[in-house]
Amino acid sequence: MPKYIDLTADMYDGAPTMPMDPKLSVSWHCGLDTLGYNLSRVTMSTHQGTHFDAPRHFFDEGESIDQISIERCIVRAVKVDLTSKKPKEAITVADLEPYADQIASGLCVLLYTGWDKVFPKNEFFSDFPFISRELAEWFVLKKVGLVGMDMPTPNGSDWKYIHEKMLGNGTLIVEGLANMEDLADDAFTFVALPLRLRGRDGSPVRAIAILD
Amino acid sequence: MPKYIDLTADMYDGAPTMPMDPKLSVSWHCGLDTLGYNLSRVTMSTHQGTHFDAPRHFFDEGESIDQISIERCIVRAVKVDLTSKKPKEAITVADLEPYADQIASGLCVLLYTGWDKVFPKNEFFSDFPFISRELAEWFVLKKVGLVGMDMPTPNGSDWKYIHEKMLGNGTLIVEGLANMEDLADDAFTFVALPLRLRGRDGSPVRAIAILD
Repeated sequence: MPKYIDLTADMYDGAPTMPMDPKLSVSWHCGLDTLGYNLSRVTMSTHQGTHFDAPRHFFDEGESIDQISIERCIVRAVKVDLTSKKPKEAITVADLEPYADQIASGLCVLLYTGWDKVFPKNEFFSDFPFISRELAEWFVLKKVGLVGMDMPTPNGSDWKYIHEKMLGNGTLIVEGLANMEDLADDAFTFVALPLRLRGRDGSPVRAIAILD
Repeated sequence: MPKYIDLTADMYDGAPTMPMDPKLSVSWHCGLDTLGYNLSRVTMSTHQGTHFDAPRHFFDEGESIDQISIERCIVRAVKVDLTSKKPKEAITVADLEPYADQIASGLCVLLYTGWDKVFPKNEFFSDFPFISRELAEWFVLKKVGLVGMDMPTPNGSDWKYIHEKMLGNGTLIVEGLANMEDLADDAFTFVALPLRLRGRDGSPVRAIAILD
């Protein structure tokens, strides 16, 4: 029996989001006392909590979330320990260099800063360690297939350049991961299967690791 | 490289639902011309399209969707060919008997009727072949861990008995699967990981099969 690690943040009514994003609302549509069963209504951003960015997020003609092949959502992954990073500190190529020989074309890199523990404070969305331009370029150069992170987004100010560089060059992005401290340094498979939202830009996911 | 089969129906604005369920709405929150990126807002039922039923759907004290262990969402599965079934015809224990020796405790059974091809006609939600009371009891007796189906729900009239029998006795349910014709008779693993909707009754999923 393989061992699973859940890398997903909870979704619940009123959970904080990036300031300009649609707010998460979850309410009861009916209950045992009305229609005889419990059923809920969810209003959410396609970028709520732990979620997947498709190229369509930054390119009108880019692949939409339902067009990303399953092969790109179930990938061998390397965890990069960045827990020494301070708030608002850049994550650079030098931080990744020790892992360079483990990072092959098409693989997934998970950036573990521990920043998920700052949620739900406001600073979660503003003061996180961030990916530098050079690191985004390095991921593309190394042909990394997917970059996952426990920050809410790769970079708070230089977001356009970083997203366009990665999503425009075959490096997909999963943001808002949680609980990476439960991952050992051993090899694992990362799974993040988005909802089939036709023609859309992203999707919340249940992200997990399958340990060998 | 394993082969994957996508068993998930598309989610899109205005997609039909069960008559009393919240309607699926998907709209653009912003675009490249406004905030500089594409981002969507989704309003959905927790039982939209291809989705997972948790015991909480019928029991206020039952396990909620975020409490179901990952081990129960990634399971060995058997496909049962029921394509000879007519609309509104009962699926009975006799239909499952030929597969009885392949069905072990904790495994998943996928009921393949081909009914997903009737979507999006109104009849999709009313005239489907349905699970009999005796078959629901048989699934529980056999300790089946998960029953998946390409019908929108197990039974249109006797829904309370069937759901309570299965969900109240350890047999989880995934409804609204699609494209089971792409599955061969060979062994496979079924994956349906729900969103971590805290305390809720169900979740849309991206359901897939991983072939051996």
